[in-house]
This record gives sequence, structure tokens and C-alpha cells, in this order.
Amino acid sequence: MTGFEPKTTDWAARVRDSFARQPAMALIGASLGEIAPGAVEVALPCTAQVTQQHGYVHGGVVAMIADSAAGYTALSLVPADATVLSVEYKMNFLAPAQGEELRAAGRVLKAGRTLVVVQVDVHACRGDARVLCATMLQTVMAMHGRADAPQAPR
Amino acid sequence: MTGFEPKTTDWAARVRDSFARQPAMALIGASLGEIAPGAVEVALPCTAQVTQQHGYVHGGVVAMIADSAAGYTALSLVPADATVLSVEYKMNFLAPAQGEELRAAGRVLKAGRTLVVVQVDVHACRGDARVLCATMLQTVMAMHGRADAPQAPR
Amino acid sequence: MTGFEPKTTDWAARVRDSFARQPAMALIGASLGEIAPGAVEVALPCTAQVTQQHGYVHGGVVAMIADSAAGYTALSLVPADATVLSVEYKMNFLAPAQGEELRAAGRVLKAGRTLVVVQVDVHACRGDARVLCATMLQTVMAMHGRADAPQAPR
Amino acid sequence: MTGFEPKTTDWAARVRDSFARQPAMALIGASLGEIAPGAVEVALPCTAQVTQQHGYVHGGVVAMIADSAAGYTALSLVPADATVLSVEYKMNFLAPAQGEELRAAGRVLKAGRTLVVVQVDVHACRGDARVLCATMLQTVMAMHGRADAPQAPR
Repeated sequence: MTGFEPKTTDWAARVRDSFARQPAMALIGASLGEIAPGAVEVALPCTAQVTQQHGYVHGGVVAMIADSAAGYTALSLVPADATVLSVEYKMNFLAPAQGEELRAAGRVLKAGRTLVVVQVDVHACRGDARVLCATMLQTVMAMHGRADAPQAPR
Repeated sequence: MTGFEPKTTDWAARVRDSFARQPAMALIGASLGEIAPGAVEVALPCTAQVTQQHGYVHGGVVAMIADSAAGYTALSLVPADATVLSVEYKMNFLAPAQGEELRAAGRVLKAGRTLVVVQVDVHACRGDARVLCATMLQTVMAMHGRADAPQAPR
Repeated sequence: MTGFEPKTTDWAARVRDSFARQPAMALIGASLGEIAPGAVEVALPCTAQVTQQHGYVHGGVVAMIADSAAGYTALSLVPADATVLSVEYKMNFLAPAQGEELRAAGRVLKAGRTLVVVQVDVHACRGDARVLCATMLQTVMAMHGRADAPQAPR
Repeated sequence: MTGFEPKTTDWAARVRDSFARQPAMALIGASLGEIAPGAVEVALPCTAQVTQQHGYVHGGVVAMIADSAAGYTALSLVPADATVLSVEYKMNFLAPAQGEELRAAGRVLKAGRTLVVVQVDVHACRGDARVLCATMLQTVMAMHGRADAPQAPR
């Protein structure tokens, strides 16, 4: 339970449909994990193609899944006639992104009408072990009266 | 001229060799642009595979090339026995990332022994037109006594 | 010349009046420097009361003048019926804040209707010498239909 | 319990002594709250002198106490011969900073030898009510072999 009330009955379908239309997510092999109103997770298998030269997942790829988790976390809460845009974010890299899978979990810190602030923790998972490898603080803008366009820069 | 003195004679080769060993850069189609000590550019053609659902380049991909430009900008200045790690960055999205090509140009704001602060401006280019579509402020850590591992999260 | 067109004829008076109503700016001894549409400067003498224990200006005070410069830089461009709020910022400290005076100069990177992105460079000045001691990237929100309330957190 | 082991027996005294030597903290009326290894709180009464023109605490002052909480949170964990410097931070303003008192509580996300990453939540308190009004993500640098100089910009 996230404590947030979605403003639409089909918030989950909206998140899934929109995610499925992002070629960049397919390119890196990312998929949606658990989703709830105000809390969306993106998962990424640690395959060779997304690494840098030492075998860790590239920091930019870590940012991609965190960015995506942030956008969909916000999208899960906006009204039916609104979409969301990423305004800005800050990312801290805390540990090497290595393991079997990365999981980027977004949660809403503030859900305003125009701006939604989301924090995303990215864990590197191997078996039952989970290491916090990055955290992101992102400001998302709700665009009222627009068709869905999550993550499009303004 | 950037006003920065490289600490190695082969800084350009180091940057090019390291960049070539990043599968994630090849995956998205990014390449190095102009390079100078303390100023490295990464270019990306705006192909369909790196877009989100509206045809703009995905914000996470914009971050990937900016992140890479920041890391190599720092790497161009560190001594031969040092490599660099991305500590953290902030990214502001300013305009849609659309056009023929994106160019992410890093420049050093502060070159300390341990920490290098880099700003990266990302322009969306179409013919002669250039629009500033994102800017990144990044802190990079120089790891002395380590083999090259640019952009590996700590 | 900043290249930005103010939307009011009295933008300078609005900036000066609003600044004069901030007790916190008086508390630390800050004053307005040069102002232009989309570019506002805040100056601070390096007095003992704003220092930390080593005699440098406290990082939080550096942030206060940069934050203020960012807000007024944005305020100089908004319509008469709008005010501005600081949404978020990132600050990098680049050199010790010491000297006779600090000067925080804001400039607009993007002036949207709802969001204005401002960068602020803070220089430490002693005689003719100027050292870049901090830089801030700030997102400001224009609140249309509101009385002046610059820098009020949402 | 924070789960962090202090590297000194007098970590609490170090934090208190250093805080007491910051004129800027006295200027705004801030004091230390609860302290533990890897978790330091700074409290601020919401007096008129620290407000902006609408009676909220000035965003820069909110940043000052958060910045201070971050620095001392890190200082509580470093060895006896080390001090800490604020490298950079990002701050999101989430709600108006109004009430009887602000409480900025730092907690360590990552305690590396050279870099410590701290998150600070600032709550506005009135009676038993607490509202999250800002959050900060800060990178702190441990300076080994240096006398205490918390929060001095590099």
C-alpha cells in the first residue's frame, strides 16, 4: 500500500501500455516489475550489451531505468487527460551495478497538481542479496490536457 | 583551447580506446566527436531505436551520452595511473531531443586531484540549427593507482 | 544584453521591491548587484558572522545568495500577475568561499511558461581577482495569478 | 540504531564542538537535535528573521540547516584525523517551511572512505504535526589527515 489514491481506474493499463511503446526500454531489455499507485518498479537483467568495459552495467543505463521508473511512478497518479514529462533529476551512484538483475523502484515524495517529486532506489540483486547501487531524486511535470507522452523532455 | 594541461601525452588515445570498449555506447550508436584536454564531445544520431513513444530521443539515452561525455572529459585530464568514476550528476531537460543528431559537449569547471566537476551541454542539431536540449552537472572521482575504468559506479 | 524580453515594464522595480522584503537577505548582509532581464546578481560581503569555523563563508550562506539570485533572475521575466517559487536546485562547491565579497550571478537557460531553469555562478572576489567558488542549477516555477512570493517553497 | 559503527569514541563531542564553532548556525538560531553515528539532526525555530516576505522560512535557510545536518552526519563516522567537506547537494522543496520548528534529519546512504552520501529530510513541525517540506541528497568528502573543518567548500 502506498497511501496514494489513483485518479483513474485504468492507471495500471496506462502504465503498461505506455511502457510497451518505448523502443529504448526494449533495446536495453528492461521490463516493468511491481506496480502500485505512486510506486512503479523497472527491472533489468545484467546482460553484456548494457555494460561498460569492466562488466558493470553502464551508469547511463542505470539512469535509464531509474528515469523510467520515476516517470511511470508519476504517471500512475495523474488524471486521465494528463501525461508526464521529466523535468530534471539527480542521480548518486553508490555501488557497482553488478549482479543478475537491477531493480529500480520509484516512490512519490510529493504529488502536486503540476509537479510530482519521485525518489528511485536502484538495487543490484544476486540471489537473495540486494545492494543499493544508486538513488535518484526526480521532478516530473504533469501535463494536463495532453495525450500520453511519459518521459518526453519538455 | 580549453586552458587545461593534460597530464599525459597519450590522453587522446586513452579516451578513444576506452570509449571503444563500451558496449553500451555501441548499442545506442554513439560516437566520439571533438576532443580536447578537458573538453570531450559525444555524438548520437537520432535513430528510431533510441526514442520514446513520441519520436524524441529517450531522456535516459540523452543522459547516457552526457554521462559519457562527462567521464571522458575528466579522463582527458587525469594522470596515466588514474581512471575515473562517475560519483553523481544532475540533469535538466530543456527542450525535446529531436533532430538529426545530438551532441553532448563536456567542459571542466574544476579539476581537483580527487574530484573533477564537469558541465555537459547537449544540443539537438538539424542542419545548421542547434537547440540546447539538456544540461548536466557531474562530479567525477579520479581513482589514482587504478587501471582505466571510466564511468564505473563506485 | 541577455537576449530576453521582459514581460513587464517595471520588472526592475518588482525585483528590487521583493528583495527588500526578505528579512533573511538583510540578516546575512546581502544586496542586489547588477540586474537585467533574465540575469540578476546578488552580492555578499564576507563578514565574520556568515562564516563557518575556518573563516570561509558557510556553504549554506553561499546557497542562500545563489538561491536568491536564481529566483530573482526568473522573476525578472514573468508576467505581472505571476510570482516564482524555487522547485529544486543542485549546488556544486568548487573552491573556498573567501575574499572580500561573493557575487552570485544568475542567467536563464530556459524560460518556459511554467518552469524557468536558471544557472548561477558564484565568484569569490578580492580586488580584481575572481574565483568561481560554486555553481547552482535551479528549476523555478512561475505561479500565474498569484501575488509576488519569490522563493517561497511550494 | 543506525547500524553504523563510529570510528572514534568521541564522535558525539566532535560533532557538538564543531557545531558550536559555526557563527552562521548561531546567526539563524539553529541547534543540534538528536545525534547518533550516521544520523544527525539540526533544529531551527521558525523566527521572523529567517523568513522571506510571506512568512515562510527562506529556502536558503532551509538549505543551511539541511547542509549542516548532512555534514555532521558524515563527520560522525569519519576517523579522528579526518574532517569533512560538502562537495555538492541537490535540494527539492516539497511544502512551505512554516510551523514552530524545522527539523533536518540526516542519514547515511553510503559511507565510503573518501565519499559519504547523505540524505536529509526536513520536516516542518507544529505541535505533533510533521510535514516533509524538503529533502536533500548530498555528497560529502572525507579529508584524511586534516583538522576539523566541516562544511568548508573545497
